[in-house]
Parts: sequence; structure tokens; C-alpha cells
Amino acid sequence: MRNIRLTLQYDGTNYAGWQCQAPRIKTVQKTVENALRKILRQRIRLIGSGRTDAGVHAFAQTANFKTGSAIALRKLQKALNGNLPADISVTKAEESPAAFHARYDAKSKIYRYAILNSPHRLPLLKNKVYHCPYPLDIKLMKREAKSLIGRHDFKAFCASSGSVRDTSRTIKKLTVSSVPLPGGEGGYSLIIIDIEADGFLYNMARAIVGTLIDTARGRFAPGSLKRALDSQDRRLSGPTVPACGLCLLKVKY
Amino acid sequence: MRNIRLTLQYDGTNYAGWQCQAPRIKTVQKTVENALRKILRQRIRLIGSGRTDAGVHAFAQTANFKTGSAIALRKLQKALNGNLPADISVTKAEESPAAFHARYDAKSKIYRYAILNSPHRLPLLKNKVYHCPYPLDIKLMKREAKSLIGRHDFKAFCASSGSVRDTSRTIKKLTVSSVPLPGGEGGYSLIIIDIEADGFLYNMARAIVGTLIDTARGRFAPGSLKRALDSQDRRLSGPTVPACGLCLLKVKY
Repeated sequence: MRNIRLTLQYDGTNYAGWQCQAPRIKTVQKTVENALRKILRQRIRLIGSGRTDAGVHAFAQTANFKTGSAIALRKLQKALNGNLPADISVTKAEESPAAFHARYDAKSKIYRYAILNSPHRLPLLKNKVYHCPYPLDIKLMKREAKSLIGRHDFKAFCASSGSVRDTSRTIKKLTVSSVPLPGGEGGYSLIIIDIEADGFLYNMARAIVGTLIDTARGRFAPGSLKRALDSQDRRLSGPTVPACGLCLLKVKY
Repeated sequence: MRNIRLTLQYDGTNYAGWQCQAPRIKTVQKTVENALRKILRQRIRLIGSGRTDAGVHAFAQTANFKTGSAIALRKLQKALNGNLPADISVTKAEESPAAFHARYDAKSKIYRYAILNSPHRLPLLKNKVYHCPYPLDIKLMKREAKSLIGRHDFKAFCASSGSVRDTSRTIKKLTVSSVPLPGGEGGYSLIIIDIEADGFLYNMARAIVGTLIDTARGRFAPGSLKRALDSQDRRLSGPTVPACGLCLLKVKY
């Protein structure tokens, strides 16, 4: 049996996330599995590095599957891209060791959240950024972000800890940067938040960003991220920001 | 009467271009005029700097209209953005001199064409770039592009010269640049072609890019842009590339 590793890019706007759910729900996993079945003429179980929620994008999601087929990698990739809709693409197809498992072997993941901080929307960034019209104190965001780095119990940033026993995770990197936009004299900017962690709880990235935003616009006092973290109480962190601004940038093995 | 100048950004994917056509056809101009009529309670005639074709985007289109309304600019912009769909946005609203005319006063326009040069599509750039899977010689594109700079008869790059008498235009700048993409080790790049001219004939930008691409992939011999230009024969230039890669970047006055 071959173990084939795929790197996938997708625009999550029109999908109910990565993972297969009820039969009629359109998910990325099911769409790729259907394309694989059509090409390889066998049922394929695709293992992703993890779920992405409805509307969340992936610059580079990693997945693997086993097959007895002898199809050449180039041919497989071409056939997949010919069969997949325009919002999913296979950017790489590789052979991997028999033991490789896209989920269990992932050492860390990097998620990127993009905020358009501007009085008005920018249609060319529609569905790719979260539009926040309130002035944001980026320096404060950078300072606050530091308090989450390291190994912590992130229960306060988890939508429903019900299914997960251990809510401790390690954030390896959390950076906030401001990217100038052409014509940005009008006072708008793109704020990019990159979070690298050994794992993410349900809605964790989006709750962290929501808390950062609420602190940066003055709704929470400085120090609120640390306070929410220490409290382990979801009510002390900020709202879950919309999925459209979130993108799975990379999975490290 | 006030003369109000608007700067508009739009994703042209779902529009039949800028200009009003048959009653049921959705255009950017009509969509903005309808929003203005709703807000100002009067019929407004919006003058754009020029048409953009179906599917073509605008980073900054300029338009103006006259009104007797005393509405504050900030309020007008906010009300417009509240009434416009997510793929059109007013990024600026200003008072302008009574004589200002968005079309007649335009000194030059800059169009940008974006080519994703990659063996596979990138879904996160869907509808914003033209995907060209063939290897392109960018150095040759840069050299070829130079032959079009200056005042010339661009009849060979005009879809139908029927309605226009004078097909001479001045290209002030024509640059080809390659933008690295994250993860682009896989051999793909984004090629950006910026064309600044005092005016554009129908499909001129897209025919120029089509000729550049066909030369860069070896279908035309080097020197073909100059030859097509001199011939004034549309049959000697390349195909009109798709609208999705084209964006009106700026109008200069």
C-alpha cells in the first residue's frame, strides 16, 4: 500500500468546514474523497491534519491516504485538479512513509487571522478578511499577545471544552503585524495575526483574536488576555471573530 | 449644485461591467445609482472615468455626480456603504469643482493584470488572477513590453475599432514584474503587468497581455509585439485574456 501525502489549498467560503458531517453537507474532505474515488475507482479515506471550521480557508492543509493504485503522482495531482472545483486545489502530491499520519504526526500548526482595519470594506478582500471599523491600538495588541506564549490551559479560549479533556496547549509563536495597503493613506491597514501552536482547541484562534481586538479597541482593559487565561473562564475572553478572516497557513511535521 | 467625486472599489466578478446597459443587466454604475437614489431621493446620473468590462475589477475607479442635496460627505459615504452590496465599496467621497468631469478630465489610467503562473490553480486567488500553466519567459516579457511605450496606433490591439475613429493612444508606462508567493518554491509566481495610458481602446489591455503571454510561452517569435503594432492588424496580436485578471488600479487627473 502506498501512503500519499497531499497539500491542499482551499477557499472555505462555500464549505461547512473540512470534516465530513451529514451526507448532504458540503465539506472539503468529502469533496476531495469523491474526486479520489472517481480517479482511483475505490473508496478513499482522507486523513486531514485537523478540522477547519465552516468558512475557514487553508493556504496549505496537509492530508494523507492509503491506496494500492500505481498511478503516478503527477498524473494523480493533475487528475485531482481537473476534477476538483475551483475553490479547492492540490498544490503538492508526494509519497510518504507508511507510518505517516497527517493528524497524529503534526508537530504544530500555524493559523493566520487577517483583519481589515478600515472605516469601510474593501470588496477585493471580501471573504478573506474580517472587517473591523473601530480604531485598533496595534502596539497594545503586540504587547497583550505576548502573555499567551508558552504552555497554558486555554480553557478560557475554547468554545466548548466538553469533548476535550486536556485543554492545555503550547503557543510557540504569536505575532501581530500591520501590513500597509496601497491607497492606505485613508487610515486603513491590514492587521495580520499569526499563531503557531502544537494544537488548537475548538474556536481557540478566533477567541484569542476576538479578545485581542476587544482589548485593542478599549472594550477590555490592558492585561485582559492574561486575566482571561488565568481565570480559565470563557466569559472573561472576547467574542469568537468570524471564520472568513482565518486561514490554516501551514502544518509542521 | 454640488459636484461630488467618489472613489469606488469593486469586485467585478458578478457584474456585466461598469456601464448601464439593458434594464435587467446588473452593472456597477446602475447599482451605485440605485443606492444614491435611495439615499438622496432623486435620480442621479453617475459619470465614471470610463467603462470597465464584465468581470473586470477596480481597486480605485473614479466617478462624479451632481446633486442639490446638503448631505454631509461622511454621512453620504456611510449610507452608500450601508446600501451597497459587499462587492462594491465607496473608499472616498469628496467635494469637487463644478467643472470636474470624471471621464473628460482623466489624464491617464493605470490597469493592472495579474497572471498566476503555476502548474495548478490557487483557490485563494480565484477570480482575481488569470491562471496560466505554461512556463513564461519573464525577461522576454519585460523586453517585449518596451516596444509599446510611447504614442502609437493601437489598432492591432483593439477588439473592434468600429466605433472609435482615432485608435492612437499613449502608453506612459508598461512594467512586468514577478512577485514571489509564499510556498512558491514549487515553481510558481505571480506576474504583475501594469499599463498606464492616456486612454485604452476596447480590450486593449487584455489583447496586449495576451500577446505578451503568447510571446513569453514561445507561440510567437520575439519581436511579435512590435510587429503586431506596426501591422495595425488585430490578427497579428494575441488572444484577449480573461477579464478576471484585470483591475483598474488608479485614475490620474
